[in-house]
Amino acid sequence: MEFYEETVEETSIYKGNVTEYTVQKVKLPNGELAQREIVRHAGAAAIIPFTEDGRLILVKQYRKAIESESIEIPAGLKDADDESGLNTAKRELEEETGYKARQWDFVTSFYSTPGFTDEFLEIYEASDLYLVDDPLPQDEDENVEMIIATYDEAWAFYEKGLLRDSKTVFALFYWKMKKQMTTE
Amino acid sequence: MEFYEETVEETSIYKGNVTEYTVQKVKLPNGELAQREIVRHAGAAAIIPFTEDGRLILVKQYRKAIESESIEIPAGLKDADDESGLNTAKRELEEETGYKARQWDFVTSFYSTPGFTDEFLEIYEASDLYLVDDPLPQDEDENVEMIIATYDEAWAFYEKGLLRDSKTVFALFYWKMKKQMTTE
Repeated sequence: MEFYEETVEETSIYKGNVTEYTVQKVKLPNGELAQREIVRHAGAAAIIPFTEDGRLILVKQYRKAIESESIEIPAGLKDADDESGLNTAKRELEEETGYKARQWDFVTSFYSTPGFTDEFLEIYEASDLYLVDDPLPQDEDENVEMIIATYDEAWAFYEKGLLRDSKTVFALFYWKMKKQMTTE
Repeated sequence: MEFYEETVEETSIYKGNVTEYTVQKVKLPNGELAQREIVRHAGAAAIIPFTEDGRLILVKQYRKAIESESIEIPAGLKDADDESGLNTAKRELEEETGYKARQWDFVTSFYSTPGFTDEFLEIYEASDLYLVDDPLPQDEDENVEMIIATYDEAWAFYEKGLLRDSKTVFALFYWKMKKQMTTE
């Protein structure tokens, strides 16, 4: 690989609950040294859950990193490195919304921002939903409120800046595209 | 704000060149304490640059965080907190591709992954491009190779897993939607 950067030295700076911060000294293709700061992450899955009447289930939560509430599609971390993205998605949908789905379809997957983290996110569409009598409990340090939004309501959240993370912005454009395709 | 998390204590663990890693102790709405790991970031801008013959300009580079080459839309960090996203986009397009654009249109913006970082990305579409005689030099520790891809070529990169970061996956779906709209 022509642009390969060889790791000369790697130092783990901090191991947190969700992330590990490491600093690498790397050798560039031209022989020069450079520093790379890397946030290790277990990976995550997100769900685009559509109700039978064509609304989208969203969750509102406080995001400390941006010091603001954020309206997002349901999502969560893998419990273990070897948990499949689909299983993570199923668990998180139930934990955050109390719903299960009979229909699951893979939509896409991406690295959130590979300039500094290996966080990888898989996104699934969930439909044919039903409420669970006794759903999995939410994570202890998570407080989320469910919002079931029409197409126009979801775009209004976007316009107001209340909905502005990559996976959820992606989901809205994906929804727009789906609508275009079915009305053609 | 009902879900507000109060910062009880914040410790800056490491100040890097691109990111700062901090750890917070926060008080949850129920009074319990929790830890939040936060990566501070200056923000960035990305460009979806279309050539006159309807191809997309991409750049290939090595991404140390995922130990692999990655084909992405051009993008880069703000030089300063108060640099506008549009100016960042103009500078990065020229640095990474040698092109300038006469037409700039805002597409969207999002937090990459607000669960642990405040990185905010603005995305602009650039068209009516022209090559600059003496373009701005690339950043010293950056090695990028330009790829000008047709629609099918870009999706083939995606299918092969060579193109898989959030902003570029978004750009491909955006391109798909644009095509649907113009062929209706």
